[in-house]
Amino acid sequence: MTVLSLPEDPEALLQLGRELLAAQVFSSLLEARLDAFRPGLAELSLPLGPHLLQQYGHAHGGVVSYLADNAMTFAGGSVLGPAVTTVGFSINYLRPAQGERLAAEAIVVSGGRRLAVVRCDVSAHDEAGRSTLCAVAQGTIATIDRPSS
Amino acid sequence: MTVLSLPEDPEALLQLGRELLAAQVFSSLLEARLDAFRPGLAELSLPLGPHLLQQYGHAHGGVVSYLADNAMTFAGGSVLGPAVTTVGFSINYLRPAQGERLAAEAIVVSGGRRLAVVRCDVSAHDEAGRSTLCAVAQGTIATIDRPSS
Amino acid sequence: MTVLSLPEDPEALLQLGRELLAAQVFSSLLEARLDAFRPGLAELSLPLGPHLLQQYGHAHGGVVSYLADNAMTFAGGSVLGPAVTTVGFSINYLRPAQGERLAAEAIVVSGGRRLAVVRCDVSAHDEAGRSTLCAVAQGTIATIDRPSS
Amino acid sequence: MTVLSLPEDPEALLQLGRELLAAQVFSSLLEARLDAFRPGLAELSLPLGPHLLQQYGHAHGGVVSYLADNAMTFAGGSVLGPAVTTVGFSINYLRPAQGERLAAEAIVVSGGRRLAVVRCDVSAHDEAGRSTLCAVAQGTIATIDRPSS
Repeated sequence: MTVLSLPEDPEALLQLGRELLAAQVFSSLLEARLDAFRPGLAELSLPLGPHLLQQYGHAHGGVVSYLADNAMTFAGGSVLGPAVTTVGFSINYLRPAQGERLAAEAIVVSGGRRLAVVRCDVSAHDEAGRSTLCAVAQGTIATIDRPSS
Repeated sequence: MTVLSLPEDPEALLQLGRELLAAQVFSSLLEARLDAFRPGLAELSLPLGPHLLQQYGHAHGGVVSYLADNAMTFAGGSVLGPAVTTVGFSINYLRPAQGERLAAEAIVVSGGRRLAVVRCDVSAHDEAGRSTLCAVAQGTIATIDRPSS
Repeated sequence: MTVLSLPEDPEALLQLGRELLAAQVFSSLLEARLDAFRPGLAELSLPLGPHLLQQYGHAHGGVVSYLADNAMTFAGGSVLGPAVTTVGFSINYLRPAQGERLAAEAIVVSGGRRLAVVRCDVSAHDEAGRSTLCAVAQGTIATIDRPSS
Repeated sequence: MTVLSLPEDPEALLQLGRELLAAQVFSSLLEARLDAFRPGLAELSLPLGPHLLQQYGHAHGGVVSYLADNAMTFAGGSVLGPAVTTVGFSINYLRPAQGERLAAEAIVVSGGRRLAVVRCDVSAHDEAGRSTLCAVAQGTIATIDRPSS
């Protein structure tokens, strides 16, 4: 799927984001879902199934960092356009991620023409509706650097 | 599995590391393999199967960051002991990860009593034996902070 | 100055923080001022004099990172106690820092017994009272790891 | 000083780098010196005078991060051209920086057309010629994003 610009209609934008996510095989494997996608914001979540755990019974750090990374890429893409890539990010794990779902909310702090800086909170949500902040991240997203551009 | 100290015998250490990795369900899902595990070093790799890709046909960033994160945790654990957790890390993606296998080599730069700082290179290896550096990371590993300690 | 615990009285805490800052010769050189210091929060600022600039007429990145680093250390110390050190941090520069003063606000996101994770915003303030977000940072602060502890 | 391309002659390149550094008032204040500047590499050092210390008698973290940041910017500029800026970086402090001089060596890990990723080691050097690794950093440098480009 090659998408050159983003629709302005909120429903169409969310729909497009979901199609982009569905095109990521790894995201489908993790059953990730795009819960919100607006200019400057993306929310992504996944069910904390038993296959996502590490040896202590919590979500593996790699699952947490996947979700943060991908939410930040979508948030960056919401202001830079769909052809973006994550240049890099930093993440701090605050406490074990346990519960029913893991959710990442990424917000663009600053967006230029080619680069966006994004912050992200990753929270675990349990059956009783309680949420716990598990990780915070900060990343840089860039438009894809094509040789011909 | 609760392990309180690490064996000094190289084969026993590698064997223990592989058991710790096997206890991570998510790592089994990704077919991760511990290729080397010595004091101050861990090498982890996985096959780049089609389920690990994103929409451009490369390994998803989340797969790359999982491998870096986990290799750094193992490297940190090799000097701090097995009860460790990743406090946080930074990763830069350099180029798309394509090929047969993805491999992360993590090396302890500095290890104290409770904290270790680790650097990691993630490379893609293709069928012809060529390897390409895809990401570099830097992280902090800590012994697990128990309320009673 | 060796301080083993923090006072509960807000004025005494701010006063102690200012004494700790005054003991940092480099901070005095940069005329840094502790504007607020409460459990979980520290605000630090400095005047953007001509000696702090780089070749484009903006504050040098090193000045911005100094202020973020130090504000995060103070914020971490406000929950961990005064004997702390910055383990590491990540910073993203968003736009040039220009104006009369540079101010960093650091907030503790998560604090344990030995480690705290802190986020920080650095803003430039001009003569007209406008403020511009110039950098965001995220860091890990730890109690000092003494051989005897 | 506006420089549009870098000279190929090694001596002329080092000379240009030193002129760029001299144009940074803050770097002059810290008496920073460019010790090496080649495509993909920059070495920067400064004397650890008493004005650069914090309350424990070591170099302030802000001095260490300044030197890492600036060395990475120069290294990035050595492959991207002189009009560059640091997008962001991560730094881990390993041990107190004490001694006669502080030196940062930055090496480009990956350089594209608009972005470079750089790693940096910061070491303290004492009177007896011993050096101690004090901090490691990793950063992203970008060409300056002009509205008209």
